[in-house]
Amino acid sequence: MALSDLQTVERNETGIAAVLGILKQRFGERFQTGQSLREQHAHTTTYIPVQAPDGVAFPETTEEVQEIVRACAEHRVPVIAFGVGSSLEGHVNAPGGGISVDTSRMNRVKEVNAQDLDCTVEPGVTRVELNEYLRDTGLFFPIDPGANASLGGMAATRASGTNAVRYGTMRDNVLSLTAVMADGSVVTTGRRAKKSSAGYDLTRLLVGSEGTLGIITSITLKLAGIPQAVSGGVCPFPTVEQACEAVIATIQMGIPVARIELVNALQMRAMKTYSHLDYPESPCLFVEFHGSEAGVAEQAETFGEITAEYGGGAFQWTTVAEERAKLWKARHDAYWSSLTLRPGARGLSTDVCVPISRLAECIAETEADIAEMGLIAPIVGHVGDGNFHVLVLMDVEDPAEIALSEKFVARLNSRAVRMDGTCTGEHGIGQGKMGFLDQELGHGVDVMRAIKKALDPQNILNPGKIFPLS
Amino acid sequence: MALSDLQTVERNETGIAAVLGILKQRFGERFQTGQSLREQHAHTTTYIPVQAPDGVAFPETTEEVQEIVRACAEHRVPVIAFGVGSSLEGHVNAPGGGISVDTSRMNRVKEVNAQDLDCTVEPGVTRVELNEYLRDTGLFFPIDPGANASLGGMAATRASGTNAVRYGTMRDNVLSLTAVMADGSVVTTGRRAKKSSAGYDLTRLLVGSEGTLGIITSITLKLAGIPQAVSGGVCPFPTVEQACEAVIATIQMGIPVARIELVNALQMRAMKTYSHLDYPESPCLFVEFHGSEAGVAEQAETFGEITAEYGGGAFQWTTVAEERAKLWKARHDAYWSSLTLRPGARGLSTDVCVPISRLAECIAETEADIAEMGLIAPIVGHVGDGNFHVLVLMDVEDPAEIALSEKFVARLNSRAVRMDGTCTGEHGIGQGKMGFLDQELGHGVDVMRAIKKALDPQNILNPGKIFPLS
Repeated sequence: MALSDLQTVERNETGIAAVLGILKQRFGERFQTGQSLREQHAHTTTYIPVQAPDGVAFPETTEEVQEIVRACAEHRVPVIAFGVGSSLEGHVNAPGGGISVDTSRMNRVKEVNAQDLDCTVEPGVTRVELNEYLRDTGLFFPIDPGANASLGGMAATRASGTNAVRYGTMRDNVLSLTAVMADGSVVTTGRRAKKSSAGYDLTRLLVGSEGTLGIITSITLKLAGIPQAVSGGVCPFPTVEQACEAVIATIQMGIPVARIELVNALQMRAMKTYSHLDYPESPCLFVEFHGSEAGVAEQAETFGEITAEYGGGAFQWTTVAEERAKLWKARHDAYWSSLTLRPGARGLSTDVCVPISRLAECIAETEADIAEMGLIAPIVGHVGDGNFHVLVLMDVEDPAEIALSEKFVARLNSRAVRMDGTCTGEHGIGQGKMGFLDQELGHGVDVMRAIKKALDPQNILNPGKIFPLS
Repeated sequence: MALSDLQTVERNETGIAAVLGILKQRFGERFQTGQSLREQHAHTTTYIPVQAPDGVAFPETTEEVQEIVRACAEHRVPVIAFGVGSSLEGHVNAPGGGISVDTSRMNRVKEVNAQDLDCTVEPGVTRVELNEYLRDTGLFFPIDPGANASLGGMAATRASGTNAVRYGTMRDNVLSLTAVMADGSVVTTGRRAKKSSAGYDLTRLLVGSEGTLGIITSITLKLAGIPQAVSGGVCPFPTVEQACEAVIATIQMGIPVARIELVNALQMRAMKTYSHLDYPESPCLFVEFHGSEAGVAEQAETFGEITAEYGGGAFQWTTVAEERAKLWKARHDAYWSSLTLRPGARGLSTDVCVPISRLAECIAETEADIAEMGLIAPIVGHVGDGNFHVLVLMDVEDPAEIALSEKFVARLNSRAVRMDGTCTGEHGIGQGKMGFLDQELGHGVDVMRAIKKALDPQNILNPGKIFPLS
C-alpha cells in the first residue's frame, strides 16, 4: 500500500451543489461549509492527506440523519459519518467530497438498565463521557482504546484496547444498533436480550462496517460491574520472547487477567523519561487483575510465579489506586512519550494481531526489520490478544522516509497474515489498509462487495473505504 | 404462526431429476435416495411435518461439497445442510425437495492449537466428540446445548446452552469459518487472530444463517482451559420471582458463574421421580462455578449469602465430581423427565430470551397462561442470560391441542418481544418461527432479505427458512 494507491471517487458536482442548497436551507447554522471546519472533519491522525467533505451537518436525531441521507441518496452524494475524528486510517476522509455527518450533538445517554447491565446511547457520546455518567451506578463500560473516541466511531471500527483480553471488543459489547441505511430507512438490529438466534446477525454486520453500510444513530451496549478490587503491576523480562511465553502461560492457566500489555525496551526508555517510571529499560509486562479482594491477590501471586518461571524480574504489584493510575497513565501516554524519541517526527501506527503462539516470533522479526531498515519505532501491545502496535516515527516531509515506512508496514502486515493473523486488530481498514485486505481474506472481499452493492447500490455511504468496489 | 403458514417452495422437477443423475454418477454409494434415509434427514424433533429431500449426499471434503452445490446451482435445486438432525424448528426440512448434504463423514478434528486455545474442525464433528478428542490437552469446548449436536449445526443456528452465561454462544466462540457459497465458491471468513477489524464480519454473518447463505465446511473454534476446580449445587426458592432476583444480584455482583439454571416447580416434580433428586418440589436454581480452589469456594459462599437474602432455602454445594455429575445429568435429562408428566405426549420446545430484569415477570405471565390454557408445560431456563424453555406436552394427533399450543407459543413469543426480548435465544427461526421475526426486527428482515438475494440469487440454499423471500 502506498499513498498513490488511495482509491479515487469521482465527484458529482451537480449533486453536491444541490445537496448543499437543501441542507443549508433545512439545517441553517447546523450545516457548515467553512474550509477549516471541513478540513477538521477530514483530519487524520496519520499522514494520509486530508480530503475534506463539502459540508458538515450537525443532526440531533435519527430523523434528521434520515433527512440528510435521503437528500444525498436522491442526488447521489457521499455521506461520511464523523465521531471525534480519532480514527487512524483515513476513515473520515471524503475522497469524492460529500457531506460529513457530525454526531457530536447526538450525545445523550438515553437509558441505563442497571439490572440488565446495559445502556443505550447516541453515537456522539464518548467512552469517557459514558463512564462519567455511569459513575454512581457501580457499572462501567470497559472498552478502552487510547483515544476518548465516540461510541459510534468505536462501533463502526470494531474498536477495542487494553482490556479486550477480559471484556472483549466492540463486537462483543454491542447488543443492538439503530442505523440509517443508504436509502434513508431506519433499521434496529436487535433487542435487549443478551443472546438471540433470530436471523442474520445484523448487529455484527454493522459493527466494523466503517460507515459503509449505515450511519449508526443509537447503540445499546453491555456494561460491566466495577470490580470489587483491582490489583496491578509491572514485570520486566530479559527478552520479548520470555515475556510472550509468560503471557501464553497466564492465558492457558485461565487467569482472568483484565489487562496484559507488553512494552518493548525502546518504548520503556521513552516512558521512563516522559512518565518518570522507575523500571529497567527492558521489555516489560503491565498487568491488571479484576475481582474480589482475595481473587485479585491470588491472581497476582499466581502471575508472579509464572513470570519467575519465564525469567521475569521482580513482579511488583499493588492494589493502591494511585500507584496503578500512574502506571496506566504512562501506558496510555505511550504515544506521546514515544514522540520524544524523535522530536518533530509524526507517528505512523500499526495494529497487526496474530495467534498468541506466533507473537514472540512476529515481534522478533519485526524488531529485526526495524533495526535493518534503520527506523525508530517503539512497540506496545495488547499481548493477551496477540495484538501489538509499532509506532513508526517519521519525517512526513521526506518522501523517501514515507516510502520506507510504507515498505515496513507492508512487510509487517504480510508477516502477520502469513502467521495466520490480521493486518488490523482494532483500527480498521479505512483507506490506509485497503491494499492488504485481499491478501488476508481473498474471495471474502468479493462477498463483502456483494453485500455493499446490495445495501448501498449507489455507493454513497463512505465511498472509497475498506475495498475497491470493482 | 401455525402449521398452515409454513412457506411453500416450488419443486423444480426437471432440475431435481438432472441433479439426482449427476450425484448418483459422481458419488455412488455416498449418494442415497431411499425413502427412509431421506425422511430421517428431514425428521424434526418437533411436530412440524417431515418434508424429505430427494437425495442425501455424504461428501468428505470441501471440494466435494463444492461439486454438489455447483450441480445444484446449475440446475436450480435446493441444497440443505444436515448435521445430526437435532435442530428444533424444521431447519433440515426440504419444502421444495432437493439435496441434503449430510456432513457426518466430515468428522475430523483438523488441528488443535493448545497455546492459542483454538482448534479447527470439520462440521460433522459433534461437541461430545470434540471434547473427547481434547481430553488430554487440558482444554475443552464449553458450548453445551442439550443435544450432542454437530458443530456445523451449532454454528449455523448460533446455538448456546447451559454455560453461555460464562463462555458465550457460538457467536462468541467461532473464530473463523470456511463455507461453500451458493455459486460453489469457497470463502474463509477470517484467520486465527483473536480479534480483527478487517472488513465486514463475515464470520458472524454465517453463524446463525441456518444454511441459507453458505454450507459450512470447516470451523475454527475458541477453546477454554479446563478449570482447576469446579463447585456446584442447588438452591430452592419459594417463588420463581425470588429465584430470578437472586440471579440478577449474582450477575450484578460480578460473580463469574459458569451455569445458573432455573427449574420450575412442575419440572422439579418430574426430575425428582425420573432422576431421583432429593429436593423440594419448588423452583430451584442449579449453579456451577469454575475457577481456582479458593475461587470456587468463595463464589459458592457469596452465592449462598445472596440466595439467603432473597428467600432461598439451604444452598447445598459440593466440589465432588460425582455429586455434581448427578445434578447436571438430571438437568440435561429435563426433556426426558418432563415427558413422564404426560406419557404418550410429545414436547414442543420454546426458547424466548428477555432482559434479565423482565425475566421474573415474563415467567410469571407465562405460568399464568399455562394454567389458564390448561396446558402441561414445565419450565427450565438458562436464566443468567434471561433465556428459558417451556416444554408444552401435547397430543400431536389432536388438531385442537396443536392449535391451542400454537396459540400459547404465539402469545409467549409476543410477550418476549414486548419485553424487549427475542422469540429465540438459541434454537433459531427455521420454519417454526418465521411468523415472529417481522414482529421482532421489522425492517431488519428486509435487510436480511437483500443480503440473501445478493449472496444466493437463485434461492437454492435451504429455501423456505428464516423469512419469506418476498
